[in-house]
Parts: sequence; structure tokens; C-alpha cells
Amino acid sequence: MSAAHAALRGAHARGHALDLVVLERTGHTSYSACGIPYWISGDVAAADDLVARTYQQHRDLGVDLRLGTRATAVDLDRRTVTAIDDTETSTMLEFDELVFATGAAPIVPDWARTDTGALISGVHPVKNLDDGAVWLDLLAPHRNVRDAVIVGGGYIGVEMAETLLRRDVRTTLLTHGTVLGNLEPVLSDRVAAGLRAAGIDLRSHTEVAGVQVDSTGRVRAVTTATGDELPADAVVLAVGVRPATELGAAVGLPLGSDGGYLPDPTGRLAPGVWAAGDCCECRHRITGAVLFAPLGTHANKQGRVVGDNIAGGRAEFAGVLGSSITRFVADGVHLEISRTGLSTAEAAAAGIDYADLLTESDTASGYMPEADPIAVQVVAGTADRRLLGMQIVGGRGAGKRIDTAAAAIWGGLTVDDLAAMDLAYSPPFATVWDAVQIAARRLADRL
Amino acid sequence: MSAAHAALRGAHARGHALDLVVLERTGHTSYSACGIPYWISGDVAAADDLVARTYQQHRDLGVDLRLGTRATAVDLDRRTVTAIDDTETSTMLEFDELVFATGAAPIVPDWARTDTGALISGVHPVKNLDDGAVWLDLLAPHRNVRDAVIVGGGYIGVEMAETLLRRDVRTTLLTHGTVLGNLEPVLSDRVAAGLRAAGIDLRSHTEVAGVQVDSTGRVRAVTTATGDELPADAVVLAVGVRPATELGAAVGLPLGSDGGYLPDPTGRLAPGVWAAGDCCECRHRITGAVLFAPLGTHANKQGRVVGDNIAGGRAEFAGVLGSSITRFVADGVHLEISRTGLSTAEAAAAGIDYADLLTESDTASGYMPEADPIAVQVVAGTADRRLLGMQIVGGRGAGKRIDTAAAAIWGGLTVDDLAAMDLAYSPPFATVWDAVQIAARRLADRL
Repeated sequence: MSAAHAALRGAHARGHALDLVVLERTGHTSYSACGIPYWISGDVAAADDLVARTYQQHRDLGVDLRLGTRATAVDLDRRTVTAIDDTETSTMLEFDELVFATGAAPIVPDWARTDTGALISGVHPVKNLDDGAVWLDLLAPHRNVRDAVIVGGGYIGVEMAETLLRRDVRTTLLTHGTVLGNLEPVLSDRVAAGLRAAGIDLRSHTEVAGVQVDSTGRVRAVTTATGDELPADAVVLAVGVRPATELGAAVGLPLGSDGGYLPDPTGRLAPGVWAAGDCCECRHRITGAVLFAPLGTHANKQGRVVGDNIAGGRAEFAGVLGSSITRFVADGVHLEISRTGLSTAEAAAAGIDYADLLTESDTASGYMPEADPIAVQVVAGTADRRLLGMQIVGGRGAGKRIDTAAAAIWGGLTVDDLAAMDLAYSPPFATVWDAVQIAARRLADRL
Repeated sequence: MSAAHAALRGAHARGHALDLVVLERTGHTSYSACGIPYWISGDVAAADDLVARTYQQHRDLGVDLRLGTRATAVDLDRRTVTAIDDTETSTMLEFDELVFATGAAPIVPDWARTDTGALISGVHPVKNLDDGAVWLDLLAPHRNVRDAVIVGGGYIGVEMAETLLRRDVRTTLLTHGTVLGNLEPVLSDRVAAGLRAAGIDLRSHTEVAGVQVDSTGRVRAVTTATGDELPADAVVLAVGVRPATELGAAVGLPLGSDGGYLPDPTGRLAPGVWAAGDCCECRHRITGAVLFAPLGTHANKQGRVVGDNIAGGRAEFAGVLGSSITRFVADGVHLEISRTGLSTAEAAAAGIDYADLLTESDTASGYMPEADPIAVQVVAGTADRRLLGMQIVGGRGAGKRIDTAAAAIWGGLTVDDLAAMDLAYSPPFATVWDAVQIAARRLADRL
């Protein structure tokens, strides 16, 4: 829905008059999915705070927004969409331009479902506002939740670990590989150590065999493939998402290897048919490879591109670097975790000769109370010395430094450029050579 | 001394064996001058914490470091330096290579001196460790300092305002123009409002006529040009610094319009004669103009370049963008202040057609407790859409975002590039479009 919202803004920004119908399956629109863990933790007071634009605001802008309405079929020849609303009334809508902004759906393993296909009570994903409401109910004091198991060690898994600790729930995190597995192993290890220091029972390389329920059908334990039985009054499903592309797949629109739409840089899938957001795959700026990277940042940019283009513009989505950031802050542990560009594994997979180095330094001058450790991992091309990637794990102020590297990669700069550039210094904010520069300089010295 | 320290490191990094004599006028070496306000405030426990490399560490590295020793004359033909130590013993040293790393000296107005030329008691700059010790003594409890006047509204002035508030001293700040006058007026106004909100009596456009002393010769008030008499048990001299280039000037080495040395990009002033750090002027990367920008970041980079080159390397200093950052944090006010590249005034002075825009947004998603206001001022070239400069004034996490702009400017990127690039997002750290991107995008839409 971020993509749809951005598309509207893009079209409006060009002053384009559209008869615009928006179909939204749930009862909510234009909300921050990334904020849901912080709503459940109590950082955010109410669901309404997560909503960027309300139903009424959309209506006031002239958008015919239809909540609780699910598109069930598309006919590209007749230019129609069939939709069913929550009273089971079917409608057929004609279109000149069609935008798929259907997002992604949480992956639900078979073991999480009852025989009828419903989610087992107490087992739930964290994807949309309805999920958030379910979690607030699951964690309400009268439920007396003492133990929870998180299945999945990606961003949502780590964020929910923070959330559950802050809700005073004993938490086990299971992940089939390592936690935040897209980090270099040495940095993933640091995140693992932080989670454990805060009291998370982290179990890497662990598969779920199934869940056990009590006489009311409610989850009471998770069983691992090695036979461990972990008590669980609640289970967080955080094993990833898949692009929601059934509608387009049914009419033969091309899909990528992860099942996402493959629009061109203008967002176009076919004449008068567009896609934006988590239902799409996108192009990596360094390798040119297509990947599934469902993030709000891309969704917003893609949505704006599509909105611009429907309104007669010629915008293009410029691709992704794989930039991301999260944190784990609980019980005296403060970890900021970010990355951009290629990891060593990704560089190797792309056939690029690279060198890499891990550097330890400080977020501020060592003598300042603001100084926290920061570990910076840099990857650069051996042939052209170009910065290819950076990953950061560190304390306060560490994470957003990744943007400096993202800008440098975006500009095609070398590690020498990054080491030489004029970054801002003052003792509470940085070392004289900023941590990202120390890392770049040390790698440059070895290239 | 940062420059000298970096030169040593540079030479050592190349494994170059040098008979190295370092003459240092004061009793201290390789300390962080930028940390002194935080030492005086109590954030830093001891002067030793500010020292990056001690006398003994230098000696252990084989450096013949001579503290309390002042170079008094240079003879470029005979390749000699004359020096006097603190026992008034004169020595003559021969050299093959000579490095000026003489730094900058605080400007001391005539009204700050007694008839004999000494500083009036209680009136003091904040430049080196000896100054820091003087300030710790001036602010010791038995001195009973209640009122202080800071003369100068640059970085040191603002940092000392924070320091004095944290030491519970009633503080007036006088500046001949506006506070942080290298900021756009609208942003300078915000800093002024923050200072006042924290209790600083800020008086802009105010000149000092003189100081009044008590019967012991100690300062008791500052008189302004308009006749106001401001009580002052202590007066901070923060009216800037000038490059310390007397030695080179006496032998005809070329100086810039601000009196600083003008080395070439390799740091060379003349055959076998080099300069690095605050005694130099340097080249602005955008305009090509030479300017005096005495900052530790440049000094360290220049020192390393000179060290590399003396050891047979071919390094070059790549120029400056005018990046800087400071903060004012006291009494519930938290302001982070940073800039890079050209201000509107600097772009105009350089004859560049520019457009600029101020954008207000948040440091984190608006619904998060981490969200603080951030004002971002962007300047871009009208003809080529290149990002020319950015200034930021905002709350927690605002300041170091300037590095993203610095990297973009370093790479010659446009505001469109900055708006499109893949920066890291998560609700505690940023808005979906980062504040610097919102600013760039809005300006791009108007270009």
C-alpha cells in the first residue's frame, strides 16, 4: 500500500486528473508496516499513528478507495478487474491503466496451520495492522504469555526479539541458518552475542518440526527437528514474505525467479499495466541482477515513478543497493546493524574479484561518553578499487553511517575516494577519520 | 600537532626509516584540540585522555621529540632550523626535509591584554591543553565564577556555551555578526533560539569595546560598543585563529590571503620543504578557491600525505568541502548542527547560478519516540543540477546525515541522484525517504 500511496502522490504532484479507484483487501491503508514491531512493543501508542494517510484523507483527495475489497481477476484484453467486497458482492471495473501494488504476503509453513488451513491459535505473522492487533491481544496481560518462540532470524525476527523482551516475555529465537544471515558471519556472530547478552535463547541452524497445542487448540510448545520441545505461549512467524502476484500470474504477466513482477525501469509490465512495491523484483545497481528486495524505501520510490509515468512523465526507478538497517536495543544491549551494496558472498556469486576487511573503531572520539564500538566491514573490487559494499554493527550512532557508503557506491567511488573525502568531525559525533573512512583507508592500503 | 602526528604515521606506514626530530613549543603533543571544551565541561575526565600518542610513545617509535622547544628561525639555503628550549638554550638543527606543522594561534584582541601585553586575568582562549588547564582552574569552585562572557559565536563559542551551562555559569555570548555565521541565516536563527531557550544571553551584532578589571587586575565586566556593561568573572576568547606562519614568512615562503602556507597538493612548499595542518590554506573542491579551513580532519589527511611523500610516495590532498559539525546540548535543548559544500552566499560569491530550499522533516518515523525535527537546507546548481551544499540543524541523529551529502558532492552527484539513491530505512533511524532525500527531491522538483 506504500507503493499505491506513492503512486497517487506522484500523479498528484504532476497535477494529473485521474478517475482513481483503489482496491484494498484489508481495512487499512497507507500504513507503516515497518513500525508494527514498535507498536506491539509500546513505543507507538496507537495503530492510527502508523497511518500516513487515512481513508477520509484519500477520499478527500478524490480517490475512490474501497477497503475490504479484493481483486479476484484481471482481464487484460477487456481491460477489466473483478473485485469482491466484504459483503461478497462482486463488481467489475474497467480501467485504462492498471497498477499492481499488491505487496507481499508472509510465508506460513504447513506446521503453523490446523487441518482446516487456519493459523493455529497463538501462532501469527507480523505483517499488517490486523496482525499487529492480534499481537497486542496475544500479549495482553490477561493472556499471561510467559514464553514465546520466534521462528526466523531476519529483520522482523530480530525486531520482534526486542519487542518481546520489552514486553517481559522469555523468548527463544530459532533460525534455520545464522541470525541476520545476509550479514558477514563475523558480524552475524556479534548480533548473536548481543541477543544472547540480552537474554534471548538464540538457536541457530535449527528447523521447526511442528507445534504442540493444548486441549483448546492453542499453541503450547514448538518442537525442533532435533526433538527439543520449547515452551511457547505464542509463536512469531518471521520466515519471510513472498510477492503477491497471483492476479498477474493468472493472466500470463512475466514473473521473476522469486515470483515477483518484473516491470521495466518505468514500472511498466505491459501496455497500460504497471507494478510497484513488494510485489516486484528489482535490479541491483552493481551487478545488474534481478532480486526480490521487499522494502518500503523501494516501494515508495517505485510507486512515485509509476505515478509520474501514468501522469505522462518519464521517470525511472534507479535500482537498489540492498541498503538496510535495523537495531536490537534491550536490557543494556544497544546494537545498530546496517548494510549496503554487496557482501563478500554476493560479490563472489557475481564473479567479481574483491578484497574485504573488518575494522574496529569508535562512533565518537574515544575519550567522549558518546563513544561506542563500531565494526565496519568493507568490500572493494580488486581491479578498479571501487567500493562494492559495507556492513556495520555497532553502538549508538553506528547504523546510519551506512548511508555515506551507499552514496559513495551510488556515485561509483573507490575506497580511496571514501578515505579522502571531507566528512564531518567533532568529538561527540566521530573520530577524526570517521569509522567508515578508517575502514576504507585500511582496505585501500592493502589493495 | 595532529598534522605532525599524521605525517609520522604516514612515513611509518611506508616503512621508511627517518632520523626524525620534532620540535613542539608547548609541553604536549598529539592531543585533540577539539576535545578541550568537553574536558572543561567534565565529559572528559583528564587531559591525558585527549592525548592520542604520548611523549614516551613517540620516543619509543624513535622520534626525537623535544617538548618546550620553539623554532625561532629557518635558513632554507643552509638547511638549518634554530630552536630555543625552555632553559633558553639555543640549538641549530640541520635538515634534509622540513615540515611546517605549526598550526594556528588564537586571535587575541587588544582589549584582552594588559599594558604589558599579557592576557588580562580571567580572559582566556580555548586552543591548547594549557588553555584547558587554565579554564579548569578559572572554573574551580573556590573561584566562585557566576557570570561569564563568551566573545565569538563560531564553533568554539557555541561549544563553550554548552560547557559553561553545564558548569552552572550564567553565560552571555557576544558575536559581531550572527551566531555560527557560516550557516544560512534561517538556520543560524534556529541555533540562536536554541541557545536562548537553554538560558544563554545571546547578543548578535555586538562589538566589544573593552573589559573592566577589579583592583587585583582581574576581569569583572565586558563593555560593549553600545555601552552595555556585562558582568564577567571570566571571558572566553573565541574570535578565531590565524595560521602560525611567522617562520616561513620570514624566509619568503608564499602565503595566502589569510596568511596561511600554500603547499601544492602533495604538501610541498619548496624543494624539501613541506607544510600540513592549520598553518596551511587549502583548496575547495567545488570552487577551486583557496581558503583557510583549520580543522583536524584536514590536518590529519594533509599530514598523512606529507608523511607518505617524504617516504617516497606520491600522495595528494584532495581538497575540502567545508564539512563540519557541532552540537549544543544543554538544559533540555539538543541541537546538532552540520554543513558541507557551498552555502548560498558562497555559491553566489563563486558566480554559480544556484537554487536552494529549506525542508523540515524528522530524524525518525514521526510515530517513533526517536523522532526529532530536522531542518535541511540544500543548494544545487541550476545548470547541471549538481548538489553544491547542504546544511542541517536538528535533534538527535540529525547532524551526521551531512556525510551522505558530502559523499554525494564528492562524487559530483545531482540532487536527482541523492533523491533516488538507496539509503537505509527503519523507523527508529529515518523516514522512508530520508530527510536529506526529501530535501533533495523537493529541490529537484523545482529546478
